[in-house]
Amino acid sequence: MAVATERARRPDSFTQAVKEAVAARDVCPFCPGHEAMTPPEVLAYRAPGGAPNGEAWWVRVVPNLYAAFRLEPDGQEHREGRFWRRDAIGACEVLISSPDHLAPTPLLPRRQVEEIVQSYVDRYRHHAKDPNLEHVLILYNHGRPAGASLEHPHSQLYAINLVPPSFIDELQGGQRFYREQHACVFCRTLDDERKAGTRIVFENDAFVVFAPYAARTPFETWIIPRRHTASFGDLELSKEKPAFAEALQLTLKALREGLNDPPFNYFIHSAPLKAEVSEAYHWHLELIPKLSTAAGFELGTGMWINVVKPEDSAAFLRERVQKLEGQPA
Amino acid sequence: MAVATERARRPDSFTQAVKEAVAARDVCPFCPGHEAMTPPEVLAYRAPGGAPNGEAWWVRVVPNLYAAFRLEPDGQEHREGRFWRRDAIGACEVLISSPDHLAPTPLLPRRQVEEIVQSYVDRYRHHAKDPNLEHVLILYNHGRPAGASLEHPHSQLYAINLVPPSFIDELQGGQRFYREQHACVFCRTLDDERKAGTRIVFENDAFVVFAPYAARTPFETWIIPRRHTASFGDLELSKEKPAFAEALQLTLKALREGLNDPPFNYFIHSAPLKAEVSEAYHWHLELIPKLSTAAGFELGTGMWINVVKPEDSAAFLRERVQKLEGQPA
Repeated sequence: MAVATERARRPDSFTQAVKEAVAARDVCPFCPGHEAMTPPEVLAYRAPGGAPNGEAWWVRVVPNLYAAFRLEPDGQEHREGRFWRRDAIGACEVLISSPDHLAPTPLLPRRQVEEIVQSYVDRYRHHAKDPNLEHVLILYNHGRPAGASLEHPHSQLYAINLVPPSFIDELQGGQRFYREQHACVFCRTLDDERKAGTRIVFENDAFVVFAPYAARTPFETWIIPRRHTASFGDLELSKEKPAFAEALQLTLKALREGLNDPPFNYFIHSAPLKAEVSEAYHWHLELIPKLSTAAGFELGTGMWINVVKPEDSAAFLRERVQKLEGQPA
Repeated sequence: MAVATERARRPDSFTQAVKEAVAARDVCPFCPGHEAMTPPEVLAYRAPGGAPNGEAWWVRVVPNLYAAFRLEPDGQEHREGRFWRRDAIGACEVLISSPDHLAPTPLLPRRQVEEIVQSYVDRYRHHAKDPNLEHVLILYNHGRPAGASLEHPHSQLYAINLVPPSFIDELQGGQRFYREQHACVFCRTLDDERKAGTRIVFENDAFVVFAPYAARTPFETWIIPRRHTASFGDLELSKEKPAFAEALQLTLKALREGLNDPPFNYFIHSAPLKAEVSEAYHWHLELIPKLSTAAGFELGTGMWINVVKPEDSAAFLRERVQKLEGQPA
């Protein structure tokens, strides 16, 4: 658990008054012309000759003003009885999808989606070189019920000094399977899913989109590279980058058009930076629409009750994607 | 993960239209006089001579119409490749808090809160005798953002044929501590917390209310018996029952008055029915207010970012409880 009282100042803070004040604010810190409202950029794509922190960018990455982690450690662990804590060290960044306040990923040109993916790769590789860090997580929140506090479409990056619990579980499962079967459990799943076909949403040369067998929520969907690769940082740029952008955009478009623009979260699960798991882990993107509320049962048990079979959600999205494929990207 | 397509018919189903239709319905299935709207009761407290499924009850327990688990197994596991599934077997019950549609726990007489606790104990003990079941979970959802689909205050009980994942983790932790320290980790925590004092909210003869060291959310609060007991079913009725009712009601009152009636979930963590963990486990209630939104970071990592220190939330609630203690219950 991370305590981050800085965050109490975030737009999605407790009181309705704060929320409404933010909603009413007629300037967006992520729109062109408002660059001075953010900390100085750490990356931007703009035409040659453009000034840093000036307007003419098409993707812009800035430190998160409401960071849960910071890069200045005090180097100490603190103990209190049986408990210990250490400073939350890391970088929190906001990756602004495009200059357009009102254009989420499904509405952008395909070329722009590729540029978003390029910004993911650039920032991932940048942080992966930092020997103090253990993990890089890239995620996207869409819609206020899914935790998006600002409307202007943006992804987030967390580069942190620990391996999160859900990765420890996933790695242990992968390593156990590898020891027993001498194969990557994700590669095996891909083979099985492609053979069965019932949970496949879409595939292209380099990626497969499918509803996982034990989907936690209605329309949970994964995007996974066909090439066995543990780290998202190893995304191949000439073939895999455009294929990933295509898979991501088609999936989000199908979801938006088929289910009336639901809130969702997606996150990229990539191997921890220092884990020696290149054979047993396989990076992928997990997309979780927020169509129901996790309540006492889910919180109390760690189990999810899902009201839609993954075969049904896959068939629904598959049909939508097939219609979209004939349209100009 | 449990797939329960039956649940798609629940009031908190996808479409806003369904939600509004339910909200507009002017009859509540949990109010006196509407007993025929529920399945026949499995327990009710009413004065001697009252007819079953008649009106004059003060606590009523009925099967959940939108059950995720059912008691009729087909006795088989189904296999598909590396996956297996089995029928979700179990009982889902609704424990109606009182005849009053508009009176949640903080507004009820203390005596009625004791009757609610009595209904928890009665139904827990009933299901604990079923050799097909592994676990009994009792929970309460308050407010639509926390997943409460009907306004009339009610608890829920799930008696199921598996041990949920979060219990497996908790048990393993408790057993490891017991092997290493020859002590219950919960008893030790209680001692430590009472010595430190900074995270204590309230205590009486039999229970301690405190904010856990690694609180997941602002104002997460636990209620734990001072007597080492693994199973909630062993609640002692003459002393522990009223003490538990007092601790629960004061905590919920402080939360309601101090934070403007926030949505919350609470659930009782009791040892799995067949686990031999009487020395290493210690039942308790976990209360999680819904003051922030779990988003991509929490879903992607299994970690929680908490914007309020547990010491601060405990001090806030402690002050409120102290004011309440002088008032008639």
